Amino acid sequence: MTDIDHMTTNPFDDDKLHEECGVFGIFGHKEAAAHVALGLHALQHRGQEACGIFSYDGQQFHSHKAMGLVGDNFSDGAVMDQLKGDCSIGHVRYATTGGTVLRNVQPLFAEFEFGGFAIAHNGNLTNTQAVRRTLVRRGCIFQSDMDTEIIVHLVAVSLYATVEDRLIDALRQIEGAYSLVAMTKDTMIGVRDPNGVRPLALGKLDDGTYILASESCAFDIIGAEFVRDVDPGEVVIINKEGVKSIKPFGQTPSRFCVFEYIYFARPDSQIENRSVYEVRKAIGAELARESGVDADMVVPVPDSGVPSSIGYAAEAGIAFELGIIRNHYVGRTFIEPTQDIRHLGVRLKHNANIPSVKGKRIILVDDSIVRGTTSKKIVDMMRQAGAAEVHMRISSPPTAWPCFYGIDTPKREKLLAGQHTIEEMAEIIGADSLAFISIDGMYRAVGEAKRNDDNPQFCDACFTGEYPTRLVDHDDEVAEERQPTLPLLAEQGK
Amino acid sequence: MTDIDHMTTNPFDDDKLHEECGVFGIFGHKEAAAHVALGLHALQHRGQEACGIFSYDGQQFHSHKAMGLVGDNFSDGAVMDQLKGDCSIGHVRYATTGGTVLRNVQPLFAEFEFGGFAIAHNGNLTNTQAVRRTLVRRGCIFQSDMDTEIIVHLVAVSLYATVEDRLIDALRQIEGAYSLVAMTKDTMIGVRDPNGVRPLALGKLDDGTYILASESCAFDIIGAEFVRDVDPGEVVIINKEGVKSIKPFGQTPSRFCVFEYIYFARPDSQIENRSVYEVRKAIGAELARESGVDADMVVPVPDSGVPSSIGYAAEAGIAFELGIIRNHYVGRTFIEPTQDIRHLGVRLKHNANIPSVKGKRIILVDDSIVRGTTSKKIVDMMRQAGAAEVHMRISSPPTAWPCFYGIDTPKREKLLAGQHTIEEMAEIIGADSLAFISIDGMYRAVGEAKRNDDNPQFCDACFTGEYPTRLVDHDDEVAEERQPTLPLLAEQGK
Amino acid sequence: MTDIDHMTTNPFDDDKLHEECGVFGIFGHKEAAAHVALGLHALQHRGQEACGIFSYDGQQFHSHKAMGLVGDNFSDGAVMDQLKGDCSIGHVRYATTGGTVLRNVQPLFAEFEFGGFAIAHNGNLTNTQAVRRTLVRRGCIFQSDMDTEIIVHLVAVSLYATVEDRLIDALRQIEGAYSLVAMTKDTMIGVRDPNGVRPLALGKLDDGTYILASESCAFDIIGAEFVRDVDPGEVVIINKEGVKSIKPFGQTPSRFCVFEYIYFARPDSQIENRSVYEVRKAIGAELARESGVDADMVVPVPDSGVPSSIGYAAEAGIAFELGIIRNHYVGRTFIEPTQDIRHLGVRLKHNANIPSVKGKRIILVDDSIVRGTTSKKIVDMMRQAGAAEVHMRISSPPTAWPCFYGIDTPKREKLLAGQHTIEEMAEIIGADSLAFISIDGMYRAVGEAKRNDDNPQFCDACFTGEYPTRLVDHDDEVAEERQPTLPLLAEQGK
Amino acid sequence: MTDIDHMTTNPFDDDKLHEECGVFGIFGHKEAAAHVALGLHALQHRGQEACGIFSYDGQQFHSHKAMGLVGDNFSDGAVMDQLKGDCSIGHVRYATTGGTVLRNVQPLFAEFEFGGFAIAHNGNLTNTQAVRRTLVRRGCIFQSDMDTEIIVHLVAVSLYATVEDRLIDALRQIEGAYSLVAMTKDTMIGVRDPNGVRPLALGKLDDGTYILASESCAFDIIGAEFVRDVDPGEVVIINKEGVKSIKPFGQTPSRFCVFEYIYFARPDSQIENRSVYEVRKAIGAELARESGVDADMVVPVPDSGVPSSIGYAAEAGIAFELGIIRNHYVGRTFIEPTQDIRHLGVRLKHNANIPSVKGKRIILVDDSIVRGTTSKKIVDMMRQAGAAEVHMRISSPPTAWPCFYGIDTPKREKLLAGQHTIEEMAEIIGADSLAFISIDGMYRAVGEAKRNDDNPQFCDACFTGEYPTRLVDHDDEVAEERQPTLPLLAEQGK
Repeated sequence: MTDIDHMTTNPFDDDKLHEECGVFGIFGHKEAAAHVALGLHALQHRGQEACGIFSYDGQQFHSHKAMGLVGDNFSDGAVMDQLKGDCSIGHVRYATTGGTVLRNVQPLFAEFEFGGFAIAHNGNLTNTQAVRRTLVRRGCIFQSDMDTEIIVHLVAVSLYATVEDRLIDALRQIEGAYSLVAMTKDTMIGVRDPNGVRPLALGKLDDGTYILASESCAFDIIGAEFVRDVDPGEVVIINKEGVKSIKPFGQTPSRFCVFEYIYFARPDSQIENRSVYEVRKAIGAELARESGVDADMVVPVPDSGVPSSIGYAAEAGIAFELGIIRNHYVGRTFIEPTQDIRHLGVRLKHNANIPSVKGKRIILVDDSIVRGTTSKKIVDMMRQAGAAEVHMRISSPPTAWPCFYGIDTPKREKLLAGQHTIEEMAEIIGADSLAFISIDGMYRAVGEAKRNDDNPQFCDACFTGEYPTRLVDHDDEVAEERQPTLPLLAEQGK
Repeated sequence: MTDIDHMTTNPFDDDKLHEECGVFGIFGHKEAAAHVALGLHALQHRGQEACGIFSYDGQQFHSHKAMGLVGDNFSDGAVMDQLKGDCSIGHVRYATTGGTVLRNVQPLFAEFEFGGFAIAHNGNLTNTQAVRRTLVRRGCIFQSDMDTEIIVHLVAVSLYATVEDRLIDALRQIEGAYSLVAMTKDTMIGVRDPNGVRPLALGKLDDGTYILASESCAFDIIGAEFVRDVDPGEVVIINKEGVKSIKPFGQTPSRFCVFEYIYFARPDSQIENRSVYEVRKAIGAELARESGVDADMVVPVPDSGVPSSIGYAAEAGIAFELGIIRNHYVGRTFIEPTQDIRHLGVRLKHNANIPSVKGKRIILVDDSIVRGTTSKKIVDMMRQAGAAEVHMRISSPPTAWPCFYGIDTPKREKLLAGQHTIEEMAEIIGADSLAFISIDGMYRAVGEAKRNDDNPQFCDACFTGEYPTRLVDHDDEVAEERQPTLPLLAEQGK
Repeated sequence: MTDIDHMTTNPFDDDKLHEECGVFGIFGHKEAAAHVALGLHALQHRGQEACGIFSYDGQQFHSHKAMGLVGDNFSDGAVMDQLKGDCSIGHVRYATTGGTVLRNVQPLFAEFEFGGFAIAHNGNLTNTQAVRRTLVRRGCIFQSDMDTEIIVHLVAVSLYATVEDRLIDALRQIEGAYSLVAMTKDTMIGVRDPNGVRPLALGKLDDGTYILASESCAFDIIGAEFVRDVDPGEVVIINKEGVKSIKPFGQTPSRFCVFEYIYFARPDSQIENRSVYEVRKAIGAELARESGVDADMVVPVPDSGVPSSIGYAAEAGIAFELGIIRNHYVGRTFIEPTQDIRHLGVRLKHNANIPSVKGKRIILVDDSIVRGTTSKKIVDMMRQAGAAEVHMRISSPPTAWPCFYGIDTPKREKLLAGQHTIEEMAEIIGADSLAFISIDGMYRAVGEAKRNDDNPQFCDACFTGEYPTRLVDHDDEVAEERQPTLPLLAEQGK
Repeated sequence: MTDIDHMTTNPFDDDKLHEECGVFGIFGHKEAAAHVALGLHALQHRGQEACGIFSYDGQQFHSHKAMGLVGDNFSDGAVMDQLKGDCSIGHVRYATTGGTVLRNVQPLFAEFEFGGFAIAHNGNLTNTQAVRRTLVRRGCIFQSDMDTEIIVHLVAVSLYATVEDRLIDALRQIEGAYSLVAMTKDTMIGVRDPNGVRPLALGKLDDGTYILASESCAFDIIGAEFVRDVDPGEVVIINKEGVKSIKPFGQTPSRFCVFEYIYFARPDSQIENRSVYEVRKAIGAELARESGVDADMVVPVPDSGVPSSIGYAAEAGIAFELGIIRNHYVGRTFIEPTQDIRHLGVRLKHNANIPSVKGKRIILVDDSIVRGTTSKKIVDMMRQAGAAEVHMRISSPPTAWPCFYGIDTPKREKLLAGQHTIEEMAEIIGADSLAFISIDGMYRAVGEAKRNDDNPQFCDACFTGEYPTRLVDHDDEVAEERQPTLPLLAEQGK
């Protein structure tokens, strides 16, 4: 069904992969919703299209959902005053497909026999179609297109007595990536899927209040302490008695998304005992060792390329320079480019620092190449600015496979690395040379000796095509894409 | 649960009863949604707070819902272009309780196993609590507070095979007033509850396209012909084969709401073979005969009092005069009155025609007295304008009982006639005399010899307290109100 | 110069003439601006496109201007709280040409050497072009297209010392119609042009506060008393000493716009010792005497035709009936009609009362015919509803000449009566018969024996082409239109 | 006078100085306005509160003004389509005082005898009061509070014949800083005040079209070439014949604002033959030489401290690290901090990179200290993150005097350096050490041997209190502030 009141999609095809969501929850603080708003603000990089907060005040649930940024929607005193209560959860969202409508904004809420239940979810399920069909046949009415609603219906129809048991019962029927926070009238629950693909961390305020958040940077903004990551497959139950931990799915292999280190997570977060910033610098240093080239300056593609550029420059002993300047005031939309104004798209956000770049040999460092459209424009912009040489270094292996775990990726046929060799890619983007970090170089940078091919330490499916779960909803699609068109994995040293 | 994004309620306590809804549907016209928009515009008097339209184009359903008037929300070409397809239904809504939110706007939609189903409902159910509780226990998740959603869930969980059978199965489990239109991908269905409390009529365009609408005035705007009223308890099924009629509830007694004639319906509508305008004039004439008084002019309280004033003036041989002038540009809101400016509320909409009224004996004709607050202000305004005498005549019997069938009424304790004798009421509003049409006078005006007390020809519960259905949801409330505090029914000649 | 942020013009070509403005001012009340807002609300029929209020609090001027209705823009407590002070003036505006932009909304304000000066104007000047040219040549910079700004600049460059003298100096240089209110930091001034074409009245609150308003209905809403009309050519100066009256233009002939009685003014207003409502009834009665016809019912074209219909019906002894029902919820805009839906324009606002009209001989009473488009649609609608005969009676003489004094009229070539005989007009609109009130009948209805052709008692230029002032700005246009194409004046009995 | 429709001011007291304006103009390109929109977007750092564009299409002028960002207001095709013509100028604005209202948004426009005239101005005048008073006395009516309107009125009343001569005549009567672009129906004019305090540059497209812009980065976005800076006191006249240059003010001493290099200008701009980015790095290097300190890392305060940090780190041989992470999604507003959440203000935008900072000795590099509030919060945040030592280095001399040339500065009494010694300041902000670049160090970094105290090469009044023009409007204020409360200048090595 089409809805008319959709939001205009972002006109900037920035050629980046996008995280879909961030979640935050707090139990037992008199200003619960204000803390959630701040936490979501710190997680805004995980989703900018919509946000929502629920709270419970001992009597009833309150909610507010809106399109746009947390800071623009949860600033009004009247709004915050309504979100009463000492338990609250929230969500920021980046929509994967088409327009976003308010009914697709999380948290989702349902009134069950035993009371209200709100849930917010970061990730993506991979066996929804059959489950959804069964539920509809049973008389369940779906209001949204979101995976999350399947979990809600499974909880609703579960035969178990307690919410905790119903939720575990529901999660046993689904596959995929899910880090979620949920709340009832007396409990907050956090769950990380058995592979722990998406992050979820436990924090604590000075006064002992417990917090759940996608990343530790959300603890910093409210002065909370990072306690620990929620484990893969762990269910954390927080209520007046404190924190209880269950592992209802048995012992499960950790397959945390390595791309969270490379690009998605905020550099000031720490996940699974690693500083995101330090990992990025380490990748830059590995890259300098693996693919060094003689040059006058290392130039980061703003802003995500900065930490790896610093690592690269330090390791290579080459000056780190701001050869590209970012315009911070892009606004939501802009004029469509005309024929007379070339390469406008990228210049709305970036400009070459012409006086510094002219006549120089440059190493551009970026985090990834998706379709390659932006990379080509940036290389082009540097050449027009008079750069003598432009070498591109990428702080991830070639992104050759789509993600089905909550990242908005194009299909394999649209991924530059899904269709071309590295040499071809260099030619397409117009660089004098192009190098990606190797798979093992990436593993080294995160502190592993090498990739364990039998049981990889991370989910690296976007580089290797080895997905940690079944992909029931996508089997045909993936099979088709696995045609041996390219010897890419071999080329990457695997 | 509270939602924050509610609409501000109308600041004018106009002390009128309000119809809750109007419905419209059309099957088999290439501009289906445009016709629905026009039909809803003609039914706008039945609800001004929100409106919604669904359509089906052979491939998918389309929808648009909005707060406010049809003309303000369905005027945009882009909106109408999206509402593709040759079957379409729509709804206008006046909210009974608290604020209105978009999720409470009809039509409701659900994706069933066999496809989409949209439904719009005029009326109110009286046994929702138990049914809803059963559904929730079974795992059904409710998204709104609307009665209509109960019908949708009952259809979803029904074990019958066809939509028609599932809908009939659902309706057998509910009680109350409901005139509804529904649509699937190949059928439009209209249903009027067994008592036919709310109106629903069948119309036809020149080209044979069938239409369902709450009132016949919605046929006029699109140049359609009034075919007939849908019968109480009738299910009308419209598809490519034409119109099929079923009466699955057996033979049922008609109890059409008599207040539709007195106030709710538009004067240019015809319902159950009566012209609403002519009924109102006839009541005015009956009133002149029953409660005549010597005076200089008959003055209608704008605008609803006009037809009965015309009838009264003609019967009494007294001049009909616009002694009260209405301001047509009230806007949505207005400044709160200050202490220095008295009786402002009523004067924002009405002003005495001072030069004409000064020194005159006046008969004010209005359709009803609810709380009495407006009546008092209007009598007061006439006196300040210099009227010598002010006699109030009301074209309905005293409104002493709440309605549970889709009209927004205050509780009995707030109804002036629920707590006071007519003499007391005259004193409260400050009139020199006050008279209401008698119950039998009202029945005569609609063409009946007298009220059949064993099996009344109409639902007149708001005057008599005799409700045509069980009131399961409200039993306690009604019982309590039935305390014999007042000899009102006796006084009314019953 | 074009501005982009213009308001959409009203899509309803309702084929009526429109008053351009209403003004209101109050001096010496602690809630001055709140009273102005209410007064403007009562004058809303004189202009619905924009409104503005200025106030002065002893220290500084405050203002708020907005597109739309008074009730929608001056309801917010925060807005009203800002409009501090005990002197305040305001304006409602109907734009004559193209779009309206906020910079064209009145009152206008200028900071002079001696302090601030705000002014609001109802009417239209007729010698602006030369005056404006001179001012621009002198270095004056115009910010708007409004006549009013010419007055402001003339005040600014006047060599007189006091504001009063400067204003009189300015007004001596202009011609046309102007009823205006102005305020400085210690004075409120009201002026009516030498012919008194537009109305302006003086009122008083119980506490002695003086008020100026376009019509007396604006006094009623705030409980003020009507004191008297401001005389043609009178300047009323209100300050702490009380009211002072000057007649700086000498003795001038009154030429009040007779169309204010027929259509523009509110029926509950009294102007120059006549009740507008009673004049309209008297015109109806004259019309019945002049152009009686045998029929079953007199039907007003809502809402402006109601008072003359009442007068006609009473004089003719024929039943007054609501044969046309008005939809009160038109909203601001609506769907463009499609080919399949005929005569939609008029039906969005009006519907025939088919059951009452069918088979009847009908006398339709309306106030005027401008282009004739709506009249034709309404006659047509009555015929489709089954009327046996449709006779049209108009409570004004034929409108054959444009107005240059503040009414939005089409050019003579677009006025039906500017191009056609009455017989042709009857045929064009499809009526069985058509009659207009005669010029002398109209003069009788307002209490004059007959029109004084040497020095007419009213401005009736739209009927006669005899304008009370020079038309310097329009000389070519009018001369051209005066071609003797039609023996219309002769036909009208002159 | 107060206006109600003001914009909410930015709730982030970011404790930075703010440039007030940027200007852009283009003559002779068929997509003139689209180029202006892009140019203004590149100049958005010079003003984010409002923007406006005018164009002339050979027949008439067109305009659009709006609150907010260029990208949010000039993206709509309908808006851009209206801005027809091949000459266009535009303006971005940061409001210095109170709220901004649309009537204060530039460009300003006036219709003169010889046609339309539009003007946009970057800077601030210093002798407005007397000039304005004279103009008002003459009958000129001011519509805004902007300096620019004084120029417009002086042009209007000038006795010279041509616009160019009138504009020069006008400018001779004013003092202060003004870089402006203006347009008539056949000419575009650029002027830089005799001291050239604010920048203005001339650029050219491939096809020969001339452009004027505040900074060269606005040429880059549209692929234009930087031709040269407009000289101090130069009037550039661009029309169909090409570019003509006049120097009507004689030979004048250049006093370009040195703070443009330090903070205001974009790093990728080049002004007066210097790269802004390279100057900033050079200041960082000077600072390292002047005030070196042993530490583990150099941390920029984002984003303005980055180039000088790079310069500092390279010169000092200390690692450059992102010890503070910026949140890019701040939105327009945010929740007011509560008592429980400390130092929230700064954390909405910044977070310490705790894992990298903990236990380290840190050199923070920022561009200036205004009130000191933010510096204190940032030092505090680093300490809470576990930094062992926090040394603050500032890439400008102490800001001790207000600017009267178009920068929004607090009064001297609110400037931290206006009231305290450097030692006191270090204590107030809580740093282990604090150092500012010296005056001569700053001059060295821009390529001068030392400051020429008799005739300084730059305007450095905010550091020295030596203003390049008379300050007629502010004489009292400045005199009062010159009280010898502090030996600051001495301390700075002067």
